[in-house]
Amino acid sequence: MTEIKEVTIRRARREDVGHIIAMLADDPLGGPRERIENPLPQSYFRAFETVDRNPNIQLVVAEDGEGAVVGCLQLCTMPGLSSQGASRGLIEDVRVASHCRSRGIGEQLVQWAVVEARARGCNLVELLTHHSRVDAQRFYERLGFARSHVGMTIRF
Amino acid sequence: MTEIKEVTIRRARREDVGHIIAMLADDPLGGPRERIENPLPQSYFRAFETVDRNPNIQLVVAEDGEGAVVGCLQLCTMPGLSSQGASRGLIEDVRVASHCRSRGIGEQLVQWAVVEARARGCNLVELLTHHSRVDAQRFYERLGFARSHVGMTIRF
Repeated sequence: MTEIKEVTIRRARREDVGHIIAMLADDPLGGPRERIENPLPQSYFRAFETVDRNPNIQLVVAEDGEGAVVGCLQLCTMPGLSSQGASRGLIEDVRVASHCRSRGIGEQLVQWAVVEARARGCNLVELLTHHSRVDAQRFYERLGFARSHVGMTIRF
Repeated sequence: MTEIKEVTIRRARREDVGHIIAMLADDPLGGPRERIENPLPQSYFRAFETVDRNPNIQLVVAEDGEGAVVGCLQLCTMPGLSSQGASRGLIEDVRVASHCRSRGIGEQLVQWAVVEARARGCNLVELLTHHSRVDAQRFYERLGFARSHVGMTIRF
């Protein structure tokens, strides 16, 4: 058994953007969509400011005992009329640094998001995971998610 | 062939809430989650006010030539860091009144949402459709969506 790594989940700050993009890029599906340059393209920082100002979106990072950013997740809570006017939560962009996987960090991030969504009045949390990410699907099932829906996308 | 019904897509107003809830309730999956009472539970109107105030959420209805509400859709546009800081759109709560189906109304609603999401800087529009809604999946495929993801949910 690998050791469980206790992390602190905290709101992302501007200085975390580089670490977050590095994790988003270190992925067979997401990688080709990012641009890792020095300095990073300004579009990342503009997006961070927009996320940071939006009270319904929480971009968080997992920080280990040494202060290193080792994971990230974005939660969006959305009001809506269905289910008697309950809100819904959407989890996106879950990543754990490759050298820190299988130590329960993703689990702590997702469980944080579920608790937070519930505290914000959501009666449902949803997410889309690419059909090729079979391990991710098993991971979410272990945390209580059901493979209830087909996730459909159109990309421009 | 059934005739195509030309509809006007417009922002939902408070007086549309009853019509929207009636469409949400007239559904084998969503129906049991709603409460159709007279007057409607206040939670629906509170949710409407929250949606209406949120600049990133657009709840729209399709209105026919006689001014009747015959469809609805909710679009949420979300900023995010991935894909070089592009935004994403999420389509939810698509319904067409049962007596008006198969006349292209759902198509007009979804195409409105895709155009709108693109105009708001999204590079992706996503949605979850219950795995039992096989007709809906074919409908979205016809509009250019791919069955690329597994949609996972946890309900409280």
